[in-house]
Amino acid sequence: MEEVKNKQIVLKHYVNGFPKESDMLINDSATINLKLPQGSSTPITGYGVAKVIDSGHSNFKKGDLVWGGTGWEEYSIINAPETLFKIEHTDVPLSYYTGILGMPGMTAYVGFYEICAPKKGEYVFVSAASGAVGQLVGQFAKLSGCFVVGSAGTKEKVDLLKNKFGYDEAFNYKEEQDLDAALKRYFPNGIDIYFENVGGKMLEAVLSNMRVNGRISACGMISQYNLEQGEGVRNLFHIITKSLRMQGFIVTQYYHLYPKYMEMIIPLIKQGKICYIEDIAEGLESAPAALVGLFSGRNVGKQVVVVARE
Amino acid sequence: MEEVKNKQIVLKHYVNGFPKESDMLINDSATINLKLPQGSSTPITGYGVAKVIDSGHSNFKKGDLVWGGTGWEEYSIINAPETLFKIEHTDVPLSYYTGILGMPGMTAYVGFYEICAPKKGEYVFVSAASGAVGQLVGQFAKLSGCFVVGSAGTKEKVDLLKNKFGYDEAFNYKEEQDLDAALKRYFPNGIDIYFENVGGKMLEAVLSNMRVNGRISACGMISQYNLEQGEGVRNLFHIITKSLRMQGFIVTQYYHLYPKYMEMIIPLIKQGKICYIEDIAEGLESAPAALVGLFSGRNVGKQVVVVARE
Repeated sequence: MEEVKNKQIVLKHYVNGFPKESDMLINDSATINLKLPQGSSTPITGYGVAKVIDSGHSNFKKGDLVWGGTGWEEYSIINAPETLFKIEHTDVPLSYYTGILGMPGMTAYVGFYEICAPKKGEYVFVSAASGAVGQLVGQFAKLSGCFVVGSAGTKEKVDLLKNKFGYDEAFNYKEEQDLDAALKRYFPNGIDIYFENVGGKMLEAVLSNMRVNGRISACGMISQYNLEQGEGVRNLFHIITKSLRMQGFIVTQYYHLYPKYMEMIIPLIKQGKICYIEDIAEGLESAPAALVGLFSGRNVGKQVVVVARE
Repeated sequence: MEEVKNKQIVLKHYVNGFPKESDMLINDSATINLKLPQGSSTPITGYGVAKVIDSGHSNFKKGDLVWGGTGWEEYSIINAPETLFKIEHTDVPLSYYTGILGMPGMTAYVGFYEICAPKKGEYVFVSAASGAVGQLVGQFAKLSGCFVVGSAGTKEKVDLLKNKFGYDEAFNYKEEQDLDAALKRYFPNGIDIYFENVGGKMLEAVLSNMRVNGRISACGMISQYNLEQGEGVRNLFHIITKSLRMQGFIVTQYYHLYPKYMEMIIPLIKQGKICYIEDIAEGLESAPAALVGLFSGRNVGKQVVVVARE
């Protein structure tokens, strides 16, 4: 039983703009040899949790649980196993290693603490605030003694922000005629820290409301990813006049901080001081629809696709 | 002779957009009492070099030379003398204290060394490169072992960049159909450091050509200052994908570094290792035209207006 069937999600063709479900294909006929080396296939890649079945690397042995870059398929050959993290704590949901205990968790941690260096009492704004990263940034901001407001795109998400994640205030950006006016309402004294997940018009409104010496952690610009031509941000002069720092970062360059993050976050989870909402899609077949849903905000919390359960 | 005539340049009215000479007025009828306190007048303010005539502050005495914020007038009452710097070195042109030894010099120093933290061998681009600040940034970049290219708006300025300030390459942005292509020509490997003096379309072209972990010191955006609606910058996603840092700064917040800067720059000037070009306009009457000229790039080097000579 070394050659097994290996269902995969593959791209039919190069995709411009928003991906559609019809751009993706479920390949039911692929097989894979569970002994090295691999057959050839080119599935979509993403972050996943997996169990080692066979290994040629001394750090990993059969039965180990790992998280890191895998394929959208049932079994994956990992050619760079040193990029995987071995899972030590198994008394939390394993799916957490795709979210709060994985790349999105590190993104929130690095972007907020390392890039923005928050101080108690500062004013924090988070866009896409109920997403995989945003829900954590809001909770980190409260743990840091900041005032934090989040924006999201449905009433359900706004309720979550206020009632589950502890945001001081939250609003539905789709219901605001004037984002600048909305921000002035929630931040009459201005914004010290902006955790940027959105870009475009939201960034423009935020720049107008930043305070002197403000920091913008540029983590994502989901409103801009699939546009042929990005929306123009016309008021970057605020960066000069208010002495702002806007910084992008590649989270993998901070992975040396992962043990430090785990030391902080595992006790917070176990003590119930931090929570994490996942939107679970069952089965690899549900992956294309789940991906497409991200771009219209259909997911509530971190989108997870269950390929297999322990 | 305590009440003297005090010629001033004043604004006729609040100015929208580019100032015109006709927006300003030479007031020949003002007088001022050279003994404190002052009469009332509201001249335009700017950085100047001055000699103390009378003082109520123990740090300053009659005859001291100072630089800092003064009025566009022959005599000024300084209400916050602690914001002035006493001039210690008088074996350099006193006008240097409006440029290389004053605010523009500190702007180049802070923006390049403190904000951009250059490393030997890095690729540096400077816009408005022959101006009060840019001419210094290019020379600092060469002293740091960087490769540096500058842009300016006339052939004369481009020649200065290459032949006087030691830029490795320079180009006239007005002669380039496609700024992105121009930058790719001069930086086939991309840009590590951008000293931003211009904004708008130039910033957009630069973002496309920045390298991973690049730094942008946002010092000015002269192309945007007088537009009703700023040009949109549509490709800020590069900040995320290339892990860029874009930082504005208020130079006065770094004035504690002035003594350190002087220690560096005075020997460089005396040894002829750094040069500074000034564009001298004679007489306070020439100030309105000199200001207006800045926005069309008529000046070559730091614009200075001589109000009086020692």
